[in-house]
Amino acid sequence: MTYEVEQKYHLQDLESFEKALKEFTVVEEAIEHHADTYYNHPCRDFAATNEAFRIRRIGGVPMITYKGPKLPGSVKARREMEWRLDPGDQDGTQTAELLEHLGFKEVATVRKIRRPFCARDTHGPFGVVIDEIQGLGFFVEVEVMVEKRGDIEHARARIKVIAGQLGLQQPESRSYLRMVLEENLPN
Amino acid sequence: MTYEVEQKYHLQDLESFEKALKEFTVVEEAIEHHADTYYNHPCRDFAATNEAFRIRRIGGVPMITYKGPKLPGSVKARREMEWRLDPGDQDGTQTAELLEHLGFKEVATVRKIRRPFCARDTHGPFGVVIDEIQGLGFFVEVEVMVEKRGDIEHARARIKVIAGQLGLQQPESRSYLRMVLEENLPN
Repeated sequence: MTYEVEQKYHLQDLESFEKALKEFTVVEEAIEHHADTYYNHPCRDFAATNEAFRIRRIGGVPMITYKGPKLPGSVKARREMEWRLDPGDQDGTQTAELLEHLGFKEVATVRKIRRPFCARDTHGPFGVVIDEIQGLGFFVEVEVMVEKRGDIEHARARIKVIAGQLGLQQPESRSYLRMVLEENLPN
Repeated sequence: MTYEVEQKYHLQDLESFEKALKEFTVVEEAIEHHADTYYNHPCRDFAATNEAFRIRRIGGVPMITYKGPKLPGSVKARREMEWRLDPGDQDGTQTAELLEHLGFKEVATVRKIRRPFCARDTHGPFGVVIDEIQGLGFFVEVEVMVEKRGDIEHARARIKVIAGQLGLQQPESRSYLRMVLEENLPN
């Protein structure tokens, strides 16, 4: 089993971040335009159950994503499923209409421009993305993959070191969806 | 807008039915193996709302189908949606697992072997299928497509005439799902 260990940070200064990133061996991948439309359940509250359910569109290609509740007793283990809806549902509108008929409620759409990088240090490869979230600004996610559960704590420490070298100082534990919703709360 | 007008009949004698069908201009199409798994909603009863929601597999190819409640005041008008789930979900198991996580309850699977025919009489084309439903036996559906709502009554009359010529005497208004469920009720 593979574990993704990741941490999100606020990004204040894009230019100096890009400079710091170039100190690593790094390959920039293709920019992605994400539009993630989140849904709530007709008769339970995903915010309370800690589930996530969305139609994600990457450059218009529709996918469905479900993230189950965090499993008790395990380190960040949860069921995550994601797969493409096209070509049967070309742009996700049929799935969206189906969810509406079934009583699912559209919560919000998180739009981002994602710049993914494959990076490497002396310990091995890691991932970095620069996310520009509409209405929120810039964020960076640093991700390390590990094969064994026992390596998760070590990966967390390694991410902290990398973040320090990249000048990232403000970790953020909230999801983009939650931040977008908090941003739009009435005063 | 196109309307499907159709009627289901019990089939007692397959051999004499096939003989009667050959009196029409008729083309037999490829046999289909259907496995339709019906689901009920986590917090409303589709049997009461007259909705239908299923994963249909035709020769293993997965599709999703939703039929909305009958719209008030209109002649058998309801929203019907159906599309293919593969290749993103190769055999429908991911969608089935997702529905389970979302609290949908599997009701029953209706398995049938369908033999579809394109037929024609002096009034034009019509469709006929011979359905062998696992656990229930043989049925025939006769279907006429019309372009205008005003033609629906005429199509119904035409189906009755065709059914008479085919020796079909026992119309059946229940869905296969309902018949399968009634068959499995305890005494």
